[in-house]
Amino acid sequence: MAENYLTASALVKQLGGELRGDDVILTRITSLQQAQEHDISFLSNPRLREDAVASRAGVLIVTEKSAAALVGRTLIITDDPYLYFARVARLFHPLQQARSGIHPSAIIAPSAQIADSCEIGANVVIGERCVIGEHTRVLAGTVIEEDCIIGNDCVIHANVTIYHGCQLGNRVELHSGCVIGADGFGFAWDKQKNEWFKIVQTGCVILGDDVDIGANTTIDRGAIENTIVEKDAKIDNQVMIGHNGKIGAHVAIVACTGIAGSTEVGDFSVIGGAAMIGGHLNIPPKTTIGAATAVSHSIKESGYYASIFPLQKHNDWVKNAAHIRHLHEMNQKIKALEHQLAELNGTSSNQQD
Amino acid sequence: MAENYLTASALVKQLGGELRGDDVILTRITSLQQAQEHDISFLSNPRLREDAVASRAGVLIVTEKSAAALVGRTLIITDDPYLYFARVARLFHPLQQARSGIHPSAIIAPSAQIADSCEIGANVVIGERCVIGEHTRVLAGTVIEEDCIIGNDCVIHANVTIYHGCQLGNRVELHSGCVIGADGFGFAWDKQKNEWFKIVQTGCVILGDDVDIGANTTIDRGAIENTIVEKDAKIDNQVMIGHNGKIGAHVAIVACTGIAGSTEVGDFSVIGGAAMIGGHLNIPPKTTIGAATAVSHSIKESGYYASIFPLQKHNDWVKNAAHIRHLHEMNQKIKALEHQLAELNGTSSNQQD
Amino acid sequence: MAENYLTASALVKQLGGELRGDDVILTRITSLQQAQEHDISFLSNPRLREDAVASRAGVLIVTEKSAAALVGRTLIITDDPYLYFARVARLFHPLQQARSGIHPSAIIAPSAQIADSCEIGANVVIGERCVIGEHTRVLAGTVIEEDCIIGNDCVIHANVTIYHGCQLGNRVELHSGCVIGADGFGFAWDKQKNEWFKIVQTGCVILGDDVDIGANTTIDRGAIENTIVEKDAKIDNQVMIGHNGKIGAHVAIVACTGIAGSTEVGDFSVIGGAAMIGGHLNIPPKTTIGAATAVSHSIKESGYYASIFPLQKHNDWVKNAAHIRHLHEMNQKIKALEHQLAELNGTSSNQQD
Repeated sequence: MAENYLTASALVKQLGGELRGDDVILTRITSLQQAQEHDISFLSNPRLREDAVASRAGVLIVTEKSAAALVGRTLIITDDPYLYFARVARLFHPLQQARSGIHPSAIIAPSAQIADSCEIGANVVIGERCVIGEHTRVLAGTVIEEDCIIGNDCVIHANVTIYHGCQLGNRVELHSGCVIGADGFGFAWDKQKNEWFKIVQTGCVILGDDVDIGANTTIDRGAIENTIVEKDAKIDNQVMIGHNGKIGAHVAIVACTGIAGSTEVGDFSVIGGAAMIGGHLNIPPKTTIGAATAVSHSIKESGYYASIFPLQKHNDWVKNAAHIRHLHEMNQKIKALEHQLAELNGTSSNQQD
Repeated sequence: MAENYLTASALVKQLGGELRGDDVILTRITSLQQAQEHDISFLSNPRLREDAVASRAGVLIVTEKSAAALVGRTLIITDDPYLYFARVARLFHPLQQARSGIHPSAIIAPSAQIADSCEIGANVVIGERCVIGEHTRVLAGTVIEEDCIIGNDCVIHANVTIYHGCQLGNRVELHSGCVIGADGFGFAWDKQKNEWFKIVQTGCVILGDDVDIGANTTIDRGAIENTIVEKDAKIDNQVMIGHNGKIGAHVAIVACTGIAGSTEVGDFSVIGGAAMIGGHLNIPPKTTIGAATAVSHSIKESGYYASIFPLQKHNDWVKNAAHIRHLHEMNQKIKALEHQLAELNGTSSNQQD
Repeated sequence: MAENYLTASALVKQLGGELRGDDVILTRITSLQQAQEHDISFLSNPRLREDAVASRAGVLIVTEKSAAALVGRTLIITDDPYLYFARVARLFHPLQQARSGIHPSAIIAPSAQIADSCEIGANVVIGERCVIGEHTRVLAGTVIEEDCIIGNDCVIHANVTIYHGCQLGNRVELHSGCVIGADGFGFAWDKQKNEWFKIVQTGCVILGDDVDIGANTTIDRGAIENTIVEKDAKIDNQVMIGHNGKIGAHVAIVACTGIAGSTEVGDFSVIGGAAMIGGHLNIPPKTTIGAATAVSHSIKESGYYASIFPLQKHNDWVKNAAHIRHLHEMNQKIKALEHQLAELNGTSSNQQD
């Protein structure tokens, strides 16, 4: 799809690393398997070394250590081939620039301030007193309610909804279907009327610079204080962040994860996919939570936590899982056996005396 | 954000409770930590008593029991400070009234009946023969297909989709991105053609009065009969209710929960976040299901059920989880040990005779 | 809702099966419980045999085996009553045909090619160079970005988003709120800058013929290669398919399931609701994964796999779950007991010698 071309030597000039072998004209970055003579590819997972050897790629991005097995090939040597690949890919596929202008079908409230360099797509709706920064793109069908402040160079994809009063930093990317600032889930039970009474949600959502939010993810507004996602946090699709949550800087949260209200996730943490994290908890910085893991209490010490029920054939599961319900009893039986055996050994040793 | 002010004495006059101490002019309701002299806050969680003592709030909503530690402060005494707080918050932040009128960009089918007091937002699409009650707000980008009946005082947020033939009671609130009435997941396997044949989904979705539905939640239409959510049920974000489900009155369902088709959840039940409930099950009234808990069979007796795999450090998990696959075997070994020990004890006692 | 009527004999003429008993005029297909004299219903689950006997349905679709208990009734005998029911339901409720034409509010890029027989709804947005086949329906508020190719007879419901460059086969149905082709979740960690660097996602999404996608489901575009869903795969609501995934033909994936990137699910597999499947895995053809089951490694052999933590009363769970963290220790204790007992038996037998 990319129609520009680059040479290996030009890449090294721009991105660093060491070029080893003949210069090559490159038209595409692709996988080891698909690559042809004018393609560049990379080796970061050592398990793919055989694929690298077999690859027809014109240039391979590799570590010094991997280079030994690839003599006679054109290589770019770097400490971090995956990051280097990411940078090359960005050169072949530059970020789409905002096509400045407001589509005639967009409905912009009179008091909204939209920078001239913004791209506002078809059927976009922007509420009163919103402020939208330079070069930000708001794509078709997105609704931004009143009093939102959105920074520069953001990309808000099609059919996003941002409720009133939310704030986005610079270079924020929101994918389609995500909902920022819907009401948190707060109800007080009225014992006399025997019904729920809604707690008005008066906080907002604040997203820092360089935050990415995936498709159909929801981040609720705070009940009293704000829900906050710090800079460079990356959140995948279908994630749910409850009201008053605080997601630290550089955190990565993989798809389908739910984080209940008022929970804090420390900076640089990584939350695996489909993780389920309770409310009012604290996850310390630099913590990793494995995929599909339920967290129901705060974690005191950074580290790698995981907990899933191991996969089994259904028949084995039926046989084994039943015992989970009797683990306490099983443990009591072991204790009783230990006790009896200790007594018996006492007797035995008496007999041997 | 609230620009109105209230006095403590006026609150008590309107909402009940007992005012103790000097009257105070109040401009805001906020947390114990943030509150200043013209703010009102509340103490409902006894673990926050220290925060209440330290709070600079002008007025504290507390129980008689908590009042003892707060002498010299202006207090409002009530049995249920959390509910009282909810009511005060509503006074400071009144529900937004419908700004009656239809935005010129909205597309309303000729046969739809929209009450004059309704607010219909930009780019809303409403199908043939829909009926929408008094003071209902339908916000930007929402699509309501033909033959829907929607009550009074509803709020349907931006970018909601309601499929044809669905019915909403009064005071229903639907948050952005939710989808009401998409087809249930029903396919018959055609053994001869070796392919799926879709079961047409001919039921609808019926939502009772005072139902709340969270952002990006989906409630499928029934296959033959209807999918029903009874009055005052509160459903959080990213919840999935399968076809023909029946959610009882006053039920609360926390985010990310999935409830498969034809399952009934009894009145007053509470379903924790990320719970996974199978199809064709029955959950009795006043049942609590813990967060992240899988329910694969009907529950006979009301109560509090939970079941999550306990969180562990990853290394411990690796060590412990492997044994899950051998619990049956482990149990057999214990039985064998008990048997051997019983025999040995028999032998031993014989020897002692 | 259906206003057409059919006779039992006409049904058999069109769909096969054997009519037994008097012919009946039929106006509706419904459940055994609801059915009246001019209704047709079916018995496929043997546990409902009593309901069939009690049913007032004018005609019952049953197997030869079930017919014995229903003498004197009008029956249609078939091998597969559920599939037969599905076909009859389709006759009573024919697929809605495309009302050809483009709604005046739709915004179609000049270079898009829309077949004359298409139905394009209100506020639909279609990008440059899109091609949309015959009789395809695109409902209100849907956004299709540039360079998409969409086959014949598709139904794309309201408020769907399809990112640029995606391809749909014929008879594909996409339910509201689903997002096809958002960026996969790919970031390289930049150790020097201490921040994430986004991996540009250059692949697309390809959906085969007869694919169904549920409401609010997300299927991410590939990083380098494409994300592929093969023909006749049926995907329920709120499912997440990560980048570069490959979902085989005729696969069924029930709601709330997440499948991380680069995972392949073989043809004819069935994935239960709320299943959690890791990345870079392989699920062989004809495999069944139970609901709420986590899969963290590839499966080598087809079969039925399941693994959920069994439901317990909360108090029992507290008592039992604690032991999960000590299973390894528990197992060591059993081994020690076995060892001691073996020694003791050795001693005993020595004594008996």
